[in-house]
Amino acid sequence: MKAAVWYGEKDIRVEERELKQMKDNEVTVRVAWTGICGSDLHEYQEGPVFIPVGEEHPLTGQQAPLTMGHEFAGIVEKVGQDVTSVKVGDRVAINPMYTYGNKPEDVDAYDGFQFVGLGSDGGFASHVNLGEKHIYKLPDSMTLQDGALVEPTAVAVQAVKEANMQFGDTVAVFGAGPIGLLTTIAAKAAGASKIFVFDLSEQRLAKAKELGATHVYNSGEVNPVEAVKAIVPDGVDVAFEVAGVAPTFKQAIDVTRARGTMVIVSIFARPIEWNPMQLTNTGVKVTSTIAYTPSTFQQTIDLMGTGQLKPQGIITSKIELDNIVEEGFEALTNDKSQAKILVELSGEM
Amino acid sequence: MKAAVWYGEKDIRVEERELKQMKDNEVTVRVAWTGICGSDLHEYQEGPVFIPVGEEHPLTGQQAPLTMGHEFAGIVEKVGQDVTSVKVGDRVAINPMYTYGNKPEDVDAYDGFQFVGLGSDGGFASHVNLGEKHIYKLPDSMTLQDGALVEPTAVAVQAVKEANMQFGDTVAVFGAGPIGLLTTIAAKAAGASKIFVFDLSEQRLAKAKELGATHVYNSGEVNPVEAVKAIVPDGVDVAFEVAGVAPTFKQAIDVTRARGTMVIVSIFARPIEWNPMQLTNTGVKVTSTIAYTPSTFQQTIDLMGTGQLKPQGIITSKIELDNIVEEGFEALTNDKSQAKILVELSGEM
Repeated sequence: MKAAVWYGEKDIRVEERELKQMKDNEVTVRVAWTGICGSDLHEYQEGPVFIPVGEEHPLTGQQAPLTMGHEFAGIVEKVGQDVTSVKVGDRVAINPMYTYGNKPEDVDAYDGFQFVGLGSDGGFASHVNLGEKHIYKLPDSMTLQDGALVEPTAVAVQAVKEANMQFGDTVAVFGAGPIGLLTTIAAKAAGASKIFVFDLSEQRLAKAKELGATHVYNSGEVNPVEAVKAIVPDGVDVAFEVAGVAPTFKQAIDVTRARGTMVIVSIFARPIEWNPMQLTNTGVKVTSTIAYTPSTFQQTIDLMGTGQLKPQGIITSKIELDNIVEEGFEALTNDKSQAKILVELSGEM
Repeated sequence: MKAAVWYGEKDIRVEERELKQMKDNEVTVRVAWTGICGSDLHEYQEGPVFIPVGEEHPLTGQQAPLTMGHEFAGIVEKVGQDVTSVKVGDRVAINPMYTYGNKPEDVDAYDGFQFVGLGSDGGFASHVNLGEKHIYKLPDSMTLQDGALVEPTAVAVQAVKEANMQFGDTVAVFGAGPIGLLTTIAAKAAGASKIFVFDLSEQRLAKAKELGATHVYNSGEVNPVEAVKAIVPDGVDVAFEVAGVAPTFKQAIDVTRARGTMVIVSIFARPIEWNPMQLTNTGVKVTSTIAYTPSTFQQTIDLMGTGQLKPQGIITSKIELDNIVEEGFEALTNDKSQAKILVELSGEM
């Protein structure tokens, strides 16, 4: 089968690759759609970040070169003899997360984790073999394309859960990339009454407005703290830092009310210079989120199934696997109007 | 009357100073004992930090030169005609905090605050005039000397409350100065089952052990993270950062379990270089504390009154006002075996 395989920085090859032997506790999924994630982009631009190189990852037993792709959905085509909860023909989304499973789910990931499509062969191919625990059934109300959006949406749902957000709370989101947009959508669905979104790109801000932000500002042009406090003088209840740089880290604290919560959602590539007194002076609490628990992944499917969560608006482009480098990774690198690009494998079946 | 007056860095003068005119809503307190606080020391070593110089502080209407001293207790000697809740002869501790009072008490301080003895004349003198709201009655079970310990103990009680500590939790304290020692005492009184204390001074560590720490380590000699995890493999539930430097900030996060809380208690004099990914990787939440609410101040008196909180062990020296510079500020600067030094004004009466 054809697959998009990561060999190294700026070296992703669409090439012929053999499907591994399916184990008795695995199923073979025929992939319908697979999204390109920000972490895929990081692996392309400056990897390896998560991808194991030179030795097998302990959770997956695999290493580069690996087929990428961890945001995907498809149809179960074959089922191993030890598999009990999944049957041929099931329409499914993939929870790509591997953990050691030694701890309760809310802390399990902190012992270490990996992803299908980063630490093992993933969804930029027509077929993948996966253990049963990665397979989540989709309700009839969801298309397979919707299924490919579950994974990034679950990241945003987890972020909102970490914030202890209350119905009616006011929210700020720093960064309107795909995860910032999904966080906006999730916060709205959780009942945020005001959502301030900040970015440097007017195109992304327009998208944020379209998807539920009540106030959007170009943070290159206005002071985010003044902008928020002009409308919510004590500051917002919750701020989400989805940009990953020092200025937005500090702004996200400063727009938040005393005893409100700032949630780090982004991955910081570099240390920042910062005075912890900013917390002492403001009374803001800082927490963080990483990926999602199995419960959150299921809740995301449930909320998409009922239509409470509608992430579909983040899709800006659908492409063929053959064009993934040019129309996928390069487009995301150069074109800020791109948010979520889906790669069609089998498409709707 | 004689008073210890702050004029500038390294310039505290014991000199004759007139007691201000008492207002109708004020009482005159005859001071018994006054403790020297870490912030007093900062004002001496590198002030002004909190002390208003060149213009009156909006909350107090006063400015330097000012009589220092904000940890004190005494007896009410005179009562203004508008005062209703305090009478002559009452044995009282002073809550030195000024706030604007426009917000609920848990967030009031974040609008700005000041202290008696830093922003207005304080307790290093025989008498002080103070508004009624600063005056808290002591139960018969407490001496006036105990009363002088209420203020720093309230800081520690507030820190423990901010940590959302549960009965039986495990705790780490970084820094065994007076506030670190009091935090140890408060955490113990709140039911901490294990208390790890770290410092560079063996004398302070011995003191911490004496006052309730279950494990003490010289962090110049052992790796705090390894030391804690050898005993509590998942990390402690709560860590208190009471040292105010980059290494202890990072260690305090690393010794804490996923979803545990790190509380910033100290005042950071300088920014640190830090990667917020430390929170993403560990799942630790960071919060902070500043001073205390009126409720916490009263609870501290109540807990000391019942004997549940016994901070008396932090007192290492009692001195006369005339010797406050040499035996107080200089001793605290040069002698790590000093924790809390009390200045005797009238003493027990």
